[in-house]
Formats: sequence, C-alpha cells, structure tokens
Amino acid sequence: MKEKLTIVKVGGAVVEDEAQLHDLLIQFRQIEGVKILVHGGGRRATKVAAQLGIETRMVEGRRITDGEMLQVVTMVYGGLVNKHVVAQLQALGVDAIGLTGADGSIITSKRRPPVNGVDYGFVGDVTQVKALTLHTFLKAGLVPVVAPLTHDAEGHILNTNADTMASETAKAMAAIYDVTLVYAFEKPGVLLDAGDEASVIPAIGHEDFQRLKADGTISGGMVPKVQNALAAVDAGVARVVITSAQAIDGQHGTVIS
Amino acid sequence: MKEKLTIVKVGGAVVEDEAQLHDLLIQFRQIEGVKILVHGGGRRATKVAAQLGIETRMVEGRRITDGEMLQVVTMVYGGLVNKHVVAQLQALGVDAIGLTGADGSIITSKRRPPVNGVDYGFVGDVTQVKALTLHTFLKAGLVPVVAPLTHDAEGHILNTNADTMASETAKAMAAIYDVTLVYAFEKPGVLLDAGDEASVIPAIGHEDFQRLKADGTISGGMVPKVQNALAAVDAGVARVVITSAQAIDGQHGTVIS
Repeated sequence: MKEKLTIVKVGGAVVEDEAQLHDLLIQFRQIEGVKILVHGGGRRATKVAAQLGIETRMVEGRRITDGEMLQVVTMVYGGLVNKHVVAQLQALGVDAIGLTGADGSIITSKRRPPVNGVDYGFVGDVTQVKALTLHTFLKAGLVPVVAPLTHDAEGHILNTNADTMASETAKAMAAIYDVTLVYAFEKPGVLLDAGDEASVIPAIGHEDFQRLKADGTISGGMVPKVQNALAAVDAGVARVVITSAQAIDGQHGTVIS
Repeated sequence: MKEKLTIVKVGGAVVEDEAQLHDLLIQFRQIEGVKILVHGGGRRATKVAAQLGIETRMVEGRRITDGEMLQVVTMVYGGLVNKHVVAQLQALGVDAIGLTGADGSIITSKRRPPVNGVDYGFVGDVTQVKALTLHTFLKAGLVPVVAPLTHDAEGHILNTNADTMASETAKAMAAIYDVTLVYAFEKPGVLLDAGDEASVIPAIGHEDFQRLKADGTISGGMVPKVQNALAAVDAGVARVVITSAQAIDGQHGTVIS
C-alpha cells in the first residue's frame, strides 16, 4: 500500500492575511503523513506592482506577465510570500522548505504561445514534475512549500498558475504516493444551492458531474475546477477535495473521486 | 579522507550584472566535487527600495533593516536574485536549489541587539547551521544557492551578512567535508602593494598576518576579512581563498590556511 501524501493548494487571499494564514498553517501542521503546500499570491503582486508604478493587466482572470511584471511576481511569490510562509511553518515546528519550479528543477514549463491573439508574456504551462526530487525532500522530513513559479530550463523563470502546479504535482506524485489533493477556496465546497453554504455536495464522480452540469447546479468557474479535479483522478490521484481554507483536513468539503 | 566541498561567496555587484554573473556561473560549474554558492544582492535591494520610496540607511557598511526594508530584502534576495541565479545555473546543467536560512531551517540566527546605540533592526547573527540538511541536498546531487537571509525559528526572517553566512556554513560543513571557502571580491587577492594588482600574496598564515598587519601591508577592510578567514581555518575549514570573481577555481588569489 502506498504511503499517504496530502497536497494543499491555497490562494493568495488566505496567505496574504495574517490571521487566516496562521489558522491555515495550524490546520496544515495537523495533517498526518507527508505533505506539500502550494500557494498563490496574486493580490500582493498586484499591490507591489502598483507601488512600483507597474500596471496589472488581466485577461480572463490571468495575469499578463511582461518583463517588469515577471520581476514583481518573482520577488513577491518566490521571496516575500514564500519565505514568510516558510518562516511561519518553521515557528510551528514544521520543517518547511520553500521552492519554485526552478529549485531542483522540480517543475519545468514551456512558455505559453499567444492564445486567441493574447500574449500572456512570461507565463509557463507545466511540462514536467520531478517526483523523485520531491520524494527525496519528503523522505528527508522536509515539507515543500511551492510558489507559483516554474522555469523553462533555459534560464527563464515563468509565472505559472498555482492550481495547475498543484494538480500536475499531484498527478506526478501519484506514481509513488496515495495522493489527496486539497483545493482550499472561499466556499465550503461545491454547493447544491449557490446561496446556501450548508448545501455542500459531499461527493462527485464523472456521472454526477455530467448530471449536475446539465441541470445547471455546477456552472461558471466551478465547471473547469471540477473538470480538472476529475482529470487528476483519472491520472491516478486518489481523491481531490474542494473545500474552504477553514477546513482542509480532508473530512470536509466536496470529494471528487 | 573527507570529500571535497567548495563554498563560493560572491557579492551583489557580480550577481546583479548579467555578463559578470554568466562568467561567474560558468566558472562555478567547472568546480569539481560538491559545492555551495552564497550570494549578496545589496545594490539591487537599494534600487528596489528607492523605487518603492523607501530610503536606504547604512551604518558602517551595514544596512539598517526596518520592517519595510525587511520586506524589500526578502523579495530581492530570496526572490529576484536567488531565483534568477538558480534558473541560470539550471540552464547550465547545474541542479541548483535556492535557499534562505529558513528553508529546511539550514541557518538560524538571533536578532542583533542595538550596538553602540545603533539598532540595525531585523538583522540576524548566525547561531546554527544545519550541516546534515545541507549534506542531504549535496548527496542528492543538488547545489545549494544561498541568499543572505536567515530566520530566528520564531517566525521572523532576518537580514544576514553573506560573508558571515558563508564562513559559518564552511565551519559547520568542516565536520563532514574537506572545505575550501572562496571569497570572490573586486581584487585578485590580498595585495602586497595596494596599487599593483600583480602583487598578490599567494599564502597567509597566522604569523604572516601579524607581520603584514604590523608593517601596514594589510590594513582597513582587509584586516577583518583575513581575521575571519583565519578564524574559519582555526575552526576546521581546510583553506580560505580570497580572490577575484574572475578566478574562483581555487588556483588563484591568496590562500589563508
């Protein structure tokens, strides 16, 4: 039987708020077995960019990353946010190690070509995850804290979507571990009734998804989220949990399997 | 016989200049055996701070690091400079891993109390280097690239002198390895005649140092540099080399042993 590995992805809104971050890290510490944290940091990047007089441009929720913005996200994701989270975890007794995809070349990517005429700039689509290097860290008792940056193996750091980094990491690690991928977001799970936070759907499989999508229960941004979760499960990830940052223990939220 | 380990410390002026950095990394790649790179980044931090409207204050060459400046150095040293160096090394086929002292808790420090009435702020003096964790990385074929930041194990990142981090790391690693510590700076070595770059003193021991200090050959900022090098040798480091960034192969410069 494979050893359990939990990968938690948490967005910028949580890691950039001291109280929410502290609460999240206390919960993260309590997760049994080996674990990896993947974080965002977009709001902070937007704030620092503004302070530097650099305008943030988004297309369909994705950041246009020109040369100047690449420096900002490298500073903010790889430095400010990542090292803050690592130092906080160390203070909680968790032997965290902050990593970007370039470190140990754990996650390589390819610069995204223009999509429908939109050039996203220095943005990378994941091409490879070095599961064995991550495994080496986990075996050494270290807890990787991964910033949303990768590299193209040709000397360039690339801005990369944290959700995708988490799911690609989960898929690669599934060859070695029994992987649970936890997506922490602002709602307690996938809701049957968007207006009722108590209406969390406990479990969704392929057939449920088709039905819930057809009847309009799952719509908008939740469609790709669940689709990606199902794709991860198809690729060997044991389970994906969509839950709130207040309940990342794997016992709450919606389980996709 | 212990395995050889080379630790190279290079200042901000070199890592912040693309051509010089490239030249340095090509040389670094050619160093045989396991190795660690420790880098600075002060000029870039000063530049980013200015862009953010934050004034840089220095006392005796040391940066006063208040809360805002701590965020700047965390971004610049841990993110911008460190990840750039790592990505460049990866492109050269060197499996680099960027680290601050907080990552894997490799270097812990204690916040410096005010010295002669000067409060340096969030500045750390090294208290411990986890040689075994660094050893784990080296055994895994990884090449640590260390940014001048440490942590106090209580949740705080602290700005830390890169020269000191290099020498403390060298001392700690001397228990496991035959350590050569290379200080790359702007001169080709310790000079017999300050105006003549061809007058490099090939070797300096304790007795030589006393004589050269007494006759004024070694003066100013070179006195603490050589003193620190001798202290490292006394603590078990096999040799310390003071050389230029253009010749870090250990075959040039002044050898302190």
